[in-house]
Amino acid sequence: MQALKERIKREGKVLPGNIIKVDGFLNHRVDCALLGEMADAFAALFDLSGVDLVLTAEASGIALASICAYRWNKPMIFAKKAKSDNIEGGLFKSEIMSYTYGKKVTLILSRQWLTPGTRVLIIDDFMARGEAVRGLCGLVEQAGAELVGVGIAVEKGFQGGGDRLRELGVNYHALVVIDEAKPDHITFRED
Amino acid sequence: MQALKERIKREGKVLPGNIIKVDGFLNHRVDCALLGEMADAFAALFDLSGVDLVLTAEASGIALASICAYRWNKPMIFAKKAKSDNIEGGLFKSEIMSYTYGKKVTLILSRQWLTPGTRVLIIDDFMARGEAVRGLCGLVEQAGAELVGVGIAVEKGFQGGGDRLRELGVNYHALVVIDEAKPDHITFRED
Repeated sequence: MQALKERIKREGKVLPGNIIKVDGFLNHRVDCALLGEMADAFAALFDLSGVDLVLTAEASGIALASICAYRWNKPMIFAKKAKSDNIEGGLFKSEIMSYTYGKKVTLILSRQWLTPGTRVLIIDDFMARGEAVRGLCGLVEQAGAELVGVGIAVEKGFQGGGDRLRELGVNYHALVVIDEAKPDHITFRED
Repeated sequence: MQALKERIKREGKVLPGNIIKVDGFLNHRVDCALLGEMADAFAALFDLSGVDLVLTAEASGIALASICAYRWNKPMIFAKKAKSDNIEGGLFKSEIMSYTYGKKVTLILSRQWLTPGTRVLIIDDFMARGEAVRGLCGLVEQAGAELVGVGIAVEKGFQGGGDRLRELGVNYHALVVIDEAKPDHITFRED
């Protein structure tokens, strides 16, 4: 997606630890019009007639998933991050490693909102090692729902999460893949 | 907003502690089409030509604020909840009491994304005691930005947060005000 590449080139910042900061338009201050364009780009990559529901994880995936779901006229669910060990019943749970926070986090989802056979498209803002998506896939599996695909705005191609999904044969698309991120230069994978 | 009242009547559940659960359409599983209708209802209550930016707090305000901002063609910013005491510099900070989690939480916002004079409309899903909105107003004030108004989907009228804003003369609107919440009956304030 050319508009997204250009925006990352113009405004993205590379910080130590391979962190690519795009919080001026994607995950803190949000350029909602750009997210609408991303929704259209995903719509060209996935067969939305076979999607019942959009699934994401709090917090940074919610804006993109909401605008996608709104444009596609689908409901959206976001998995929550458990705030304590004291988790109530009636939940699907999936433990992931959060490298952002340097600790394990449990994704939770009320059983009543994800039912067997529901056709789910996962949408998230970033793909690095793929922990969040792995956790979301675990929730889909526990529910007996069907994973239709995984759509990501920005994949950090050098961290392996996207390649693992490709090897597994998942219907996976990233709008932009970054192959190298240096403070003075970001290299995008050719489409 | 009649459609929202009817949805709350039909699907809302009142739990002990005055908790009104509407997580089947507002803050876990999200009915994005209904959120689009809420955006239109807010648009009839606020003069959007005088709004530069929509502000909310993670996580449950993000879906509504995103869809509002998308429909109004505005950017959206969400204040983050600090995950640790080890907060980096360059931030506005506002401490609030989270009754949901029974502890103090610090709302943070990068200084670079909220600049003096920016005209801000706060949008959030729920108003109870008003702590989240109080914290967001604090961020607006620290930035030297201008608070244009506060729009809330569901106000729990019996918890005082909305009345305090009205007394302060804030340009405040809730789409629905609940005056009493009992397990077998929810009473709405007349428009």
